[in-house]
Amino acid sequence: MSERIWTAALVVIGDEILSGRTQDKNVAQIAAWLNVQGIRLAEVRVVPDVEAAIVEAVNALRARNDYLFTTGGIGPTHDDITVDAIAAALGVGVVHHPKAVAVLERYYATRGGTTEARLRMARVPDGADLIENRVSGAPGIRIGNIFIMAGVPHITAGMLDALTGTLEGGQPVVSRTIGCWVAESEVAQLLGDTERAHEGVAIGSYPFFREGRTGANFVVRSPDAALVDATIADLTARLEADGRTVVSDGI
Amino acid sequence: MSERIWTAALVVIGDEILSGRTQDKNVAQIAAWLNVQGIRLAEVRVVPDVEAAIVEAVNALRARNDYLFTTGGIGPTHDDITVDAIAAALGVGVVHHPKAVAVLERYYATRGGTTEARLRMARVPDGADLIENRVSGAPGIRIGNIFIMAGVPHITAGMLDALTGTLEGGQPVVSRTIGCWVAESEVAQLLGDTERAHEGVAIGSYPFFREGRTGANFVVRSPDAALVDATIADLTARLEADGRTVVSDGI
Repeated sequence: MSERIWTAALVVIGDEILSGRTQDKNVAQIAAWLNVQGIRLAEVRVVPDVEAAIVEAVNALRARNDYLFTTGGIGPTHDDITVDAIAAALGVGVVHHPKAVAVLERYYATRGGTTEARLRMARVPDGADLIENRVSGAPGIRIGNIFIMAGVPHITAGMLDALTGTLEGGQPVVSRTIGCWVAESEVAQLLGDTERAHEGVAIGSYPFFREGRTGANFVVRSPDAALVDATIADLTARLEADGRTVVSDGI
Repeated sequence: MSERIWTAALVVIGDEILSGRTQDKNVAQIAAWLNVQGIRLAEVRVVPDVEAAIVEAVNALRARNDYLFTTGGIGPTHDDITVDAIAAALGVGVVHHPKAVAVLERYYATRGGTTEARLRMARVPDGADLIENRVSGAPGIRIGNIFIMAGVPHITAGMLDALTGTLEGGQPVVSRTIGCWVAESEVAQLLGDTERAHEGVAIGSYPFFREGRTGANFVVRSPDAALVDATIADLTARLEADGRTVVSDGI
Protein backbone atom coordinates (compact mmCIF):
# COMPACT_ATOMS: atom_id res chain seq x y z
CA MET A 1 0.00 0.00 0.00
CA SER A 2 1.55 3.29 -1.06
CA GLU A 3 -1.49 5.25 0.11
CA ARG A 4 -0.92 7.99 2.65
CA ILE A 5 -1.37 6.80 6.24
CA TRP A 6 -3.19 9.18 8.58
CA THR A 7 -2.19 9.02 12.21
CA ALA A 8 -3.47 10.33 15.53
CA ALA A 9 -2.03 10.42 19.01
CA LEU A 10 -3.91 10.52 22.30
CA VAL A 11 -2.93 12.21 25.55
CA VAL A 12 -4.90 10.86 28.52
CA ILE A 13 -4.81 13.48 31.26
CA GLY A 14 -5.53 12.37 34.77
CA ASP A 15 -4.07 11.48 38.15
CA GLU A 16 -6.94 9.01 38.56
CA ILE A 17 -5.55 6.81 35.77
CA LEU A 18 -1.94 7.00 37.02
CA SER A 19 -2.97 6.20 40.60
CA GLY A 20 -4.77 3.06 39.48
CA ARG A 21 -8.08 4.33 40.90
CA THR A 22 -9.78 4.46 37.51
CA GLN A 23 -9.51 1.97 34.67
CA ASP A 24 -9.10 3.93 31.43
CA LYS A 25 -11.67 3.15 28.74
CA ASN A 26 -10.95 5.98 26.32
CA VAL A 27 -7.89 4.44 24.65
CA ALA A 28 -9.84 1.47 23.31
CA GLN A 29 -12.91 3.56 22.45
CA ILE A 30 -10.98 6.26 20.59
CA ALA A 31 -8.74 3.69 18.85
CA ALA A 32 -11.75 1.83 17.46
CA TRP A 33 -13.48 5.05 16.40
CA LEU A 34 -10.34 6.40 14.71
CA ASN A 35 -9.95 3.22 12.70
CA VAL A 36 -13.43 3.65 11.24
CA GLN A 37 -12.38 7.15 10.15
CA GLY A 38 -9.32 5.68 8.37
CA ILE A 39 -6.92 7.06 10.98
CA ARG A 40 -4.44 5.00 12.98
CA LEU A 41 -3.83 5.57 16.66
CA ALA A 42 -0.02 5.72 16.59
CA GLU A 43 0.81 6.47 20.23
CA VAL A 44 -0.74 7.23 23.60
CA ARG A 45 0.65 9.02 26.63
CA VAL A 46 -0.93 9.15 30.07
CA VAL A 47 0.17 12.23 32.01
CA PRO A 48 -0.71 13.66 35.43
CA ASP A 49 -2.74 16.83 36.12
CA VAL A 50 0.44 18.91 35.83
CA GLU A 51 0.69 21.68 33.25
CA ALA A 52 4.31 21.08 32.25
CA ALA A 53 3.63 17.37 31.64
CA ILE A 54 0.59 18.15 29.46
CA VAL A 55 2.47 20.82 27.49
CA GLU A 56 5.38 18.48 26.78
CA ALA A 57 3.17 15.63 25.59
CA VAL A 58 0.90 17.86 23.48
CA ASN A 59 3.76 19.60 21.74
CA ALA A 60 5.67 16.37 21.04
CA LEU A 61 2.68 14.54 19.62
CA ARG A 62 0.76 17.24 17.72
CA ALA A 63 3.82 17.92 15.57
CA ARG A 64 4.28 14.38 14.34
CA ASN A 65 0.69 13.22 13.90
CA ASP A 66 -2.16 14.42 11.71
CA TYR A 67 -4.45 14.67 14.73
CA LEU A 68 -4.04 14.87 18.48
CA PHE A 69 -6.80 13.94 20.91
CA THR A 70 -6.82 14.61 24.63
CA THR A 71 -9.20 13.22 27.24
CA GLY A 72 -9.86 14.53 30.73
CA GLY A 73 -9.45 17.70 32.73
CA ILE A 74 -12.14 19.89 31.14
CA GLY A 75 -14.61 20.02 34.05
CA PRO A 76 -15.40 22.91 36.39
CA THR A 77 -13.06 22.14 39.29
CA HIS A 78 -9.58 23.30 40.30
CA ASP A 79 -7.93 20.10 39.02
CA ASP A 80 -9.26 20.68 35.48
CA ILE A 81 -6.31 22.38 33.81
CA THR A 82 -6.36 20.97 30.28
CA VAL A 83 -7.56 24.14 28.53
CA ASP A 84 -4.93 26.31 30.23
CA ALA A 85 -2.19 23.77 29.49
CA ILE A 86 -3.07 23.48 25.80
CA ALA A 87 -3.30 27.25 25.45
CA ALA A 88 0.17 27.43 27.02
CA ALA A 89 1.44 24.74 24.62
CA LEU A 90 0.15 26.78 21.67
CA GLY A 91 1.24 30.14 23.07
CA VAL A 92 -2.28 31.60 22.94
CA GLY A 93 -4.57 33.08 25.58
CA VAL A 94 -7.72 31.62 27.10
CA VAL A 95 -11.11 33.18 26.33
CA HIS A 96 -14.75 32.42 27.11
CA HIS A 97 -16.25 31.11 23.86
CA PRO A 98 -19.58 32.94 23.32
CA LYS A 99 -21.32 29.86 21.89
CA ALA A 100 -20.11 27.74 24.82
CA VAL A 101 -21.43 30.34 27.25
CA ALA A 102 -24.81 30.21 25.47
CA VAL A 103 -24.82 26.39 25.56
CA LEU A 104 -24.08 26.37 29.30
CA GLU A 105 -26.69 29.07 30.04
CA ARG A 106 -29.31 27.00 28.23
CA TYR A 107 -28.19 23.74 29.90
CA TYR A 108 -28.14 25.19 33.42
CA ALA A 109 -31.34 27.29 33.02
CA THR A 110 -33.30 24.47 34.69
CA ARG A 111 -30.38 23.34 36.89
CA GLY A 112 -29.78 26.33 39.15
CA GLY A 113 -28.24 28.71 36.61
CA THR A 114 -24.65 29.36 35.66
CA THR A 115 -21.95 30.12 38.22
CA GLU A 116 -18.32 31.15 37.86
CA ALA A 117 -17.32 27.50 38.23
CA ARG A 118 -19.76 26.36 35.56
CA LEU A 119 -18.64 29.08 33.16
CA ARG A 120 -15.08 27.73 33.51
CA MET A 121 -16.35 25.05 31.11
CA ALA A 122 -16.83 27.75 28.42
CA ARG A 123 -13.12 28.65 28.51
CA VAL A 124 -11.17 27.69 25.36
CA PRO A 125 -7.75 28.43 23.87
CA ASP A 126 -8.17 31.61 21.78
CA GLY A 127 -9.19 30.68 18.23
CA ALA A 128 -10.84 27.37 19.10
CA ASP A 129 -14.09 25.88 17.80
CA LEU A 130 -16.51 23.73 19.80
CA ILE A 131 -17.30 20.02 19.57
CA GLU A 132 -20.93 19.27 20.32
CA ASN A 133 -21.64 17.47 23.59
CA ARG A 134 -24.86 15.52 23.10
CA VAL A 135 -24.80 14.05 26.61
CA SER A 136 -24.15 16.81 29.15
CA GLY A 137 -23.67 20.57 28.92
CA ALA A 138 -20.00 21.39 28.45
CA PRO A 139 -18.74 21.10 24.86
CA GLY A 140 -15.47 19.64 23.61
CA ILE A 141 -12.96 21.90 21.89
CA ARG A 142 -11.11 21.81 18.59
CA ILE A 143 -8.12 24.02 17.89
CA GLY A 144 -5.92 23.33 14.86
CA ASN A 145 -5.31 19.58 14.80
CA ILE A 146 -6.07 19.18 18.52
CA PHE A 147 -9.35 17.71 19.77
CA ILE A 148 -10.02 18.23 23.48
CA MET A 149 -12.48 15.65 24.80
CA ALA A 150 -14.12 14.78 28.11
CA GLY A 151 -12.69 12.20 30.48
CA VAL A 152 -15.98 10.46 31.31
CA PRO A 153 -16.18 7.76 28.62
CA HIS A 154 -19.85 8.08 27.70
CA ILE A 155 -19.50 11.84 27.25
CA THR A 156 -16.43 11.27 25.07
CA ALA A 157 -18.49 8.76 23.07
CA GLY A 158 -21.07 11.46 22.34
CA MET A 159 -18.36 13.89 21.23
CA LEU A 160 -16.84 11.25 18.93
CA ASP A 161 -20.28 10.69 17.49
CA ALA A 162 -20.53 14.42 16.72
CA LEU A 163 -17.14 14.27 14.93
CA THR A 164 -17.89 11.14 12.89
CA GLY A 165 -17.23 11.68 9.20
CA THR A 166 -15.72 15.15 9.65
CA LEU A 167 -12.01 14.18 9.76
CA GLU A 168 -10.02 13.39 6.66
CA GLY A 169 -8.52 9.91 6.71
CA GLY A 170 -7.39 7.06 4.49
CA GLN A 171 -8.31 3.43 4.22
CA PRO A 172 -9.44 1.89 7.52
CA VAL A 173 -7.35 -1.05 8.65
CA VAL A 174 -9.25 -4.28 8.16
CA SER A 175 -8.62 -7.08 10.65
CA ARG A 176 -9.68 -10.71 10.75
CA THR A 177 -9.00 -13.18 13.52
CA ILE A 178 -8.66 -16.94 13.71
CA GLY A 179 -7.89 -18.97 16.83
CA CYS A 180 -6.33 -22.29 17.83
CA TRP A 181 -6.17 -24.25 21.08
CA VAL A 182 -2.38 -24.29 20.81
CA ALA A 183 0.59 -22.81 22.66
CA GLU A 184 1.71 -19.99 20.38
CA SER A 185 5.31 -21.21 20.71
CA GLU A 186 4.35 -24.34 18.74
CA VAL A 187 3.37 -22.31 15.69
CA ALA A 188 5.73 -19.34 16.03
CA GLN A 189 7.82 -20.26 12.99
CA LEU A 190 4.71 -20.83 10.88
CA LEU A 191 3.28 -17.42 11.87
CA GLY A 192 6.48 -15.58 10.98
CA ASP A 193 6.75 -17.42 7.64
CA THR A 194 3.16 -16.54 6.78
CA GLU A 195 3.65 -12.87 7.57
CA ARG A 196 6.77 -12.73 5.43
CA ALA A 197 4.90 -14.37 2.53
CA HIS A 198 2.28 -11.59 2.41
CA GLU A 199 3.86 -8.16 2.17
CA GLY A 200 1.67 -5.45 3.64
CA VAL A 201 0.01 -7.47 6.42
CA ALA A 202 0.82 -7.61 10.10
CA ILE A 203 0.00 -10.79 12.00
CA GLY A 204 -0.41 -10.45 15.76
CA SER A 205 -0.39 -13.46 18.07
CA TYR A 206 -2.34 -13.16 21.33
CA PRO A 207 -2.03 -16.09 23.71
CA PHE A 208 -4.53 -16.78 26.49
CA PHE A 209 -5.36 -19.30 29.20
CA ARG A 210 -9.02 -20.22 29.51
CA GLU A 211 -10.94 -23.15 30.97
CA GLY A 212 -7.56 -24.58 31.99
CA ARG A 213 -6.33 -24.66 28.39
CA THR A 214 -3.76 -22.75 26.39
CA GLY A 215 -4.82 -21.05 23.18
CA ALA A 216 -3.98 -18.14 20.94
CA ASN A 217 -5.76 -15.82 18.56
CA PHE A 218 -4.02 -14.67 15.42
CA VAL A 219 -5.06 -11.28 14.08
CA VAL A 220 -4.25 -10.34 10.50
CA ARG A 221 -4.33 -6.59 9.77
CA SER A 222 -3.97 -4.50 6.63
CA PRO A 223 -5.83 -1.68 4.91
CA ASP A 224 -6.23 -4.09 1.96
CA ALA A 225 -9.23 -6.34 2.69
CA ALA A 226 -8.44 -8.79 -0.13
CA LEU A 227 -4.92 -9.22 1.21
CA VAL A 228 -6.30 -9.89 4.69
CA ASP A 229 -8.65 -12.55 3.29
CA ALA A 230 -5.85 -14.20 1.28
CA THR A 231 -3.56 -14.22 4.32
CA ILE A 232 -6.26 -15.69 6.56
CA ALA A 233 -6.85 -18.44 3.98
CA ASP A 234 -3.13 -19.18 3.72
CA LEU A 235 -2.60 -19.13 7.49
CA THR A 236 -5.58 -21.43 8.00
CA ALA A 237 -4.22 -23.86 5.40
CA ARG A 238 -0.76 -23.85 6.98
CA LEU A 239 -2.15 -24.43 10.47
CA GLU A 240 -4.37 -27.29 9.25
CA ALA A 241 -1.44 -28.85 7.34
CA ASP A 242 0.40 -28.70 10.70
CA GLY A 243 -2.43 -30.72 12.30
CA ARG A 244 -4.16 -27.82 14.10
CA THR A 245 -7.89 -27.21 14.32
CA VAL A 246 -8.66 -23.62 13.37
CA VAL A 247 -11.56 -21.70 14.92
CA SER A 248 -12.97 -19.08 12.53
CA ASP A 249 -13.32 -15.55 13.94
CA GLY A 250 -11.16 -16.45 16.92
CA ILE A 251 -11.74 -18.07 20.28
CA MET B 1 6.65 16.58 52.66
CA SER B 2 10.32 17.08 51.92
CA GLU B 3 10.90 13.35 51.60
CA ARG B 4 12.29 12.03 48.32
CA ILE B 5 9.60 10.97 45.86
CA TRP B 6 10.31 7.78 43.93
CA THR B 7 8.84 7.57 40.45
CA ALA B 8 8.30 4.94 37.80
CA ALA B 9 7.19 5.09 34.18
CA LEU B 10 5.48 2.38 32.17
CA VAL B 11 5.78 1.62 28.46
CA VAL B 12 2.90 -0.54 27.21
CA ILE B 13 4.06 -2.27 24.03
CA GLY B 14 1.42 -3.58 21.70
CA ASP B 15 -0.49 -3.02 18.50
CA GLU B 16 -3.45 -4.77 20.14
CA ILE B 17 -3.90 -1.89 22.60
CA LEU B 18 -3.49 0.82 19.93
CA SER B 19 -5.95 -0.90 17.59
CA GLY B 20 -8.62 -0.99 20.29
CA ARG B 21 -8.80 -4.79 20.11
CA THR B 22 -7.60 -5.30 23.67
CA GLN B 23 -8.52 -3.28 26.75
CA ASP B 24 -5.32 -2.63 28.71
CA LYS B 25 -5.40 -3.74 32.33
CA ASN B 26 -1.73 -3.41 33.19
CA VAL B 27 -1.71 0.36 33.77
CA ALA B 28 -4.17 0.14 36.67
CA GLN B 29 -2.61 -3.04 38.07
CA ILE B 30 0.96 -1.74 37.99
CA ALA B 31 -0.09 1.70 39.30
CA ALA B 32 -1.76 0.17 42.34
CA TRP B 33 1.15 -2.21 42.99
CA LEU B 34 3.73 0.59 42.67
CA ASN B 35 1.89 2.72 45.20
CA VAL B 36 2.14 -0.03 47.79
CA GLN B 37 5.92 -0.04 47.17
CA GLY B 38 6.03 3.72 47.82
CA ILE B 39 6.64 4.51 44.14
CA ARG B 40 4.50 6.81 42.03
CA LEU B 41 3.56 5.99 38.47
CA ALA B 42 4.51 9.30 36.83
CA GLU B 43 3.81 8.63 33.16
CA VAL B 44 2.69 5.95 30.72
CA ARG B 45 3.28 5.58 27.01
CA VAL B 46 1.58 3.09 24.72
CA VAL B 47 3.68 2.33 21.66
CA PRO B 48 3.30 -0.03 18.68
CA ASP B 49 5.34 -3.18 17.99
CA VAL B 50 7.97 -1.05 16.23
CA GLU B 51 11.57 -1.05 17.45
CA ALA B 52 12.23 2.67 16.92
CA ALA B 53 9.10 3.61 18.89
CA ILE B 54 10.06 1.33 21.79
CA VAL B 55 13.65 2.63 21.84
CA GLU B 56 12.51 6.27 21.90
CA ALA B 57 10.05 5.72 24.76
CA VAL B 58 12.42 3.57 26.83
CA ASN B 59 15.31 6.00 26.53
CA ALA B 60 13.18 9.06 27.30
CA LEU B 61 11.55 7.54 30.37
CA ARG B 62 14.32 5.47 31.96
CA ALA B 63 16.49 8.57 32.26
CA ARG B 64 14.00 10.64 34.21
CA ASN B 65 12.41 8.05 36.48
CA ASP B 66 13.79 5.79 39.19
CA TYR B 67 12.24 2.76 37.53
CA LEU B 68 10.90 1.88 34.12
CA PHE B 69 8.47 -0.96 33.53
CA THR B 70 7.46 -2.38 30.18
CA THR B 71 4.61 -4.78 29.41
CA GLY B 72 4.13 -6.90 26.32
CA GLY B 73 6.15 -8.32 23.46
CA ILE B 74 8.19 -10.98 25.29
CA GLY B 75 6.54 -14.11 23.87
CA PRO B 76 7.92 -16.57 21.32
CA THR B 77 6.49 -15.14 18.10
CA HIS B 78 7.80 -12.81 15.38
CA ASP B 79 5.89 -9.82 16.75
CA ASP B 80 7.63 -10.10 20.15
CA ILE B 81 10.47 -7.59 19.76
CA THR B 82 10.73 -6.03 23.21
CA VAL B 83 14.02 -7.69 24.23
CA ASP B 84 15.75 -6.69 20.99
CA ALA B 85 14.40 -3.14 21.22
CA ILE B 86 15.54 -2.66 24.82
CA ALA B 87 18.96 -4.12 24.04
CA ALA B 88 19.19 -1.62 21.16
CA ALA B 89 18.09 1.21 23.48
CA LEU B 90 20.88 0.26 25.91
CA GLY B 91 23.46 -0.44 23.22
CA VAL B 92 24.07 -4.02 24.38
CA GLY B 93 23.77 -7.37 22.67
CA VAL B 94 21.17 -10.09 23.18
CA VAL B 95 22.14 -13.40 24.79
CA HIS B 96 20.38 -16.57 25.94
CA HIS B 97 20.31 -16.41 29.75
CA PRO B 98 21.43 -19.82 31.08
CA LYS B 99 18.96 -19.80 33.98
CA ALA B 100 16.12 -18.86 31.65
CA VAL B 101 17.09 -21.72 29.33
CA ALA B 102 17.01 -24.07 32.34
CA VAL B 103 13.61 -22.73 33.46
CA LEU B 104 12.16 -23.22 29.98
CA GLU B 105 13.66 -26.72 29.62
CA ARG B 106 12.04 -27.71 32.93
CA TYR B 107 8.71 -26.06 32.05
CA TYR B 108 8.50 -27.64 28.59
CA ALA B 109 9.84 -31.08 29.64
CA THR B 110 6.24 -32.32 29.96
CA ARG B 111 4.91 -30.02 27.20
CA GLY B 112 6.69 -31.27 24.08
CA GLY B 113 10.20 -30.02 24.82
CA THR B 114 11.94 -26.79 23.90
CA THR B 115 12.10 -25.49 20.35
CA GLU B 116 13.92 -22.58 18.77
CA ALA B 117 10.75 -20.48 19.17
CA ARG B 118 10.39 -21.38 22.84
CA LEU B 119 14.04 -20.64 23.52
CA ARG B 120 13.45 -17.15 22.12
CA MET B 121 11.85 -16.53 25.54
CA ALA B 122 15.27 -17.09 27.18
CA ARG B 123 16.80 -14.19 25.23
CA VAL B 124 17.73 -11.16 27.36
CA PRO B 125 19.74 -7.97 26.92
CA ASP B 126 23.34 -8.83 27.89
CA GLY B 127 23.83 -8.29 31.62
CA ALA B 128 20.18 -8.82 32.63
CA ASP B 129 18.74 -10.72 35.60
CA LEU B 130 15.50 -12.67 35.60
CA ILE B 131 12.17 -11.96 37.30
CA GLU B 132 10.43 -15.12 38.43
CA ASN B 133 7.30 -16.08 36.54
CA ARG B 134 5.10 -18.07 38.94
CA VAL B 135 2.34 -18.56 36.40
CA SER B 136 3.81 -19.78 33.11
CA GLY B 137 7.30 -20.65 31.92
CA ALA B 138 9.00 -17.57 30.50
CA PRO B 139 10.55 -15.26 33.09
CA GLY B 140 10.48 -11.46 33.21
CA ILE B 141 13.73 -9.54 32.88
CA ARG B 142 15.47 -6.86 34.89
CA ILE B 143 18.33 -4.82 33.52
CA GLY B 144 19.49 -1.70 35.34
CA ASN B 145 16.35 0.20 36.32
CA ILE B 146 14.25 -1.47 33.61
CA PHE B 147 11.72 -4.21 34.41
CA ILE B 148 10.46 -6.13 31.39
CA MET B 149 7.11 -7.77 32.14
CA ALA B 150 4.58 -9.93 30.30
CA GLY B 151 1.60 -8.46 28.47
CA VAL B 152 -0.97 -10.97 29.72
CA PRO B 153 -2.24 -9.34 32.93
CA HIS B 154 -2.35 -12.39 35.20
CA ILE B 155 1.23 -13.32 34.26
CA THR B 156 2.30 -9.74 34.96
CA ALA B 157 0.51 -10.02 38.32
CA GLY B 158 2.65 -13.04 39.21
CA MET B 159 5.83 -11.19 38.24
CA LEU B 160 4.82 -8.18 40.35
CA ASP B 161 4.21 -10.56 43.22
CA ALA B 162 7.77 -11.88 42.83
CA LEU B 163 9.11 -8.29 42.95
CA THR B 164 7.07 -7.20 45.97
CA GLY B 165 9.26 -5.65 48.64
CA THR B 166 12.45 -5.73 46.55
CA LEU B 167 12.35 -2.16 45.15
CA GLU B 168 13.40 0.84 47.18
CA GLY B 169 10.64 3.40 47.57
CA GLY B 170 9.33 6.12 49.84
CA GLN B 171 6.07 6.71 51.62
CA PRO B 172 3.07 5.26 49.78
CA VAL B 173 0.45 7.81 48.84
CA VAL B 174 -2.58 7.47 51.10
CA SER B 175 -5.96 8.28 49.59
CA ARG B 176 -9.42 8.63 51.11
CA THR B 177 -12.63 9.27 49.26
CA ILE B 178 -15.95 10.88 50.12
CA GLY B 179 -18.90 11.32 47.80
CA CYS B 180 -21.91 13.59 47.31
CA TRP B 181 -24.99 13.44 45.12
CA VAL B 182 -24.13 16.86 43.72
CA ALA B 183 -23.00 18.36 40.40
CA GLU B 184 -19.30 19.02 40.96
CA SER B 185 -19.76 22.50 39.51
CA GLU B 186 -21.86 23.42 42.57
CA VAL B 187 -18.97 22.78 44.95
CA ALA B 188 -16.02 23.64 42.71
CA GLN B 189 -15.09 26.78 44.67
CA LEU B 190 -15.32 24.92 47.98
CA LEU B 191 -13.05 22.10 46.69
CA GLY B 192 -10.39 24.51 45.49
CA ASP B 193 -10.50 26.47 48.75
CA THR B 194 -10.12 23.26 50.76
CA GLU B 195 -7.13 22.10 48.73
CA ARG B 196 -5.42 25.47 49.14
CA ALA B 197 -6.01 25.33 52.93
CA HIS B 198 -4.07 22.04 53.28
CA GLU B 199 -0.63 22.26 51.72
CA GLY B 200 0.66 18.90 50.56
CA VAL B 201 -2.67 17.31 49.58
CA ALA B 202 -4.20 16.92 46.15
CA ILE B 203 -7.98 16.76 45.91
CA GLY B 204 -9.39 15.11 42.80
CA SER B 205 -13.02 15.50 41.77
CA TYR B 206 -14.57 12.66 39.76
CA PRO B 207 -18.10 13.26 38.53
CA PHE B 208 -20.44 10.45 37.48
CA PHE B 209 -23.99 9.80 36.32
CA ARG B 210 -25.71 6.85 37.93
CA GLU B 211 -29.32 5.79 38.45
CA GLY B 212 -30.30 8.96 36.56
CA ARG B 213 -28.57 11.20 39.10
CA THR B 214 -25.47 13.35 39.09
CA GLY B 215 -22.83 12.81 41.74
CA ALA B 216 -19.13 13.17 42.38
CA ASN B 217 -16.45 11.49 44.42
CA PHE B 218 -13.72 13.58 45.98
CA VAL B 219 -10.37 11.85 46.48
CA VAL B 220 -7.82 13.33 48.88
CA ARG B 221 -4.24 12.12 48.33
CA SER B 222 -0.98 12.65 50.18
CA PRO B 223 1.86 10.53 51.56
CA ASP B 224 0.91 11.99 54.99
CA ALA B 225 -2.00 9.95 56.37
CA ALA B 226 -2.77 12.41 59.18
CA LEU B 227 -2.98 15.24 56.65
CA VAL B 228 -5.36 13.21 54.53
CA ASP B 229 -7.57 12.55 57.56
CA ALA B 230 -7.57 16.22 58.56
CA THR B 231 -8.42 17.29 55.01
CA ILE B 232 -11.24 14.76 54.74
CA ALA B 233 -12.67 16.06 58.04
CA ASP B 234 -12.43 19.67 56.89
CA LEU B 235 -13.90 18.93 53.46
CA THR B 236 -16.77 17.00 55.05
CA ALA B 237 -17.48 19.90 57.43
CA ARG B 238 -17.42 22.43 54.58
CA LEU B 239 -19.74 20.33 52.41
CA GLU B 240 -22.19 19.81 55.30
CA ALA B 241 -22.12 23.55 56.14
CA ASP B 242 -23.04 24.06 52.47
CA GLY B 243 -26.10 21.82 52.95
CA ARG B 244 -24.70 18.68 51.27
CA THR B 245 -25.04 15.11 52.50
CA VAL B 246 -21.65 13.42 52.51
CA VAL B 247 -21.24 9.69 51.86
CA SER B 248 -18.22 8.25 53.68
CA ASP B 249 -15.81 6.22 51.54
CA GLY B 250 -17.43 7.50 48.35
CA ILE B 251 -20.43 6.55 46.27
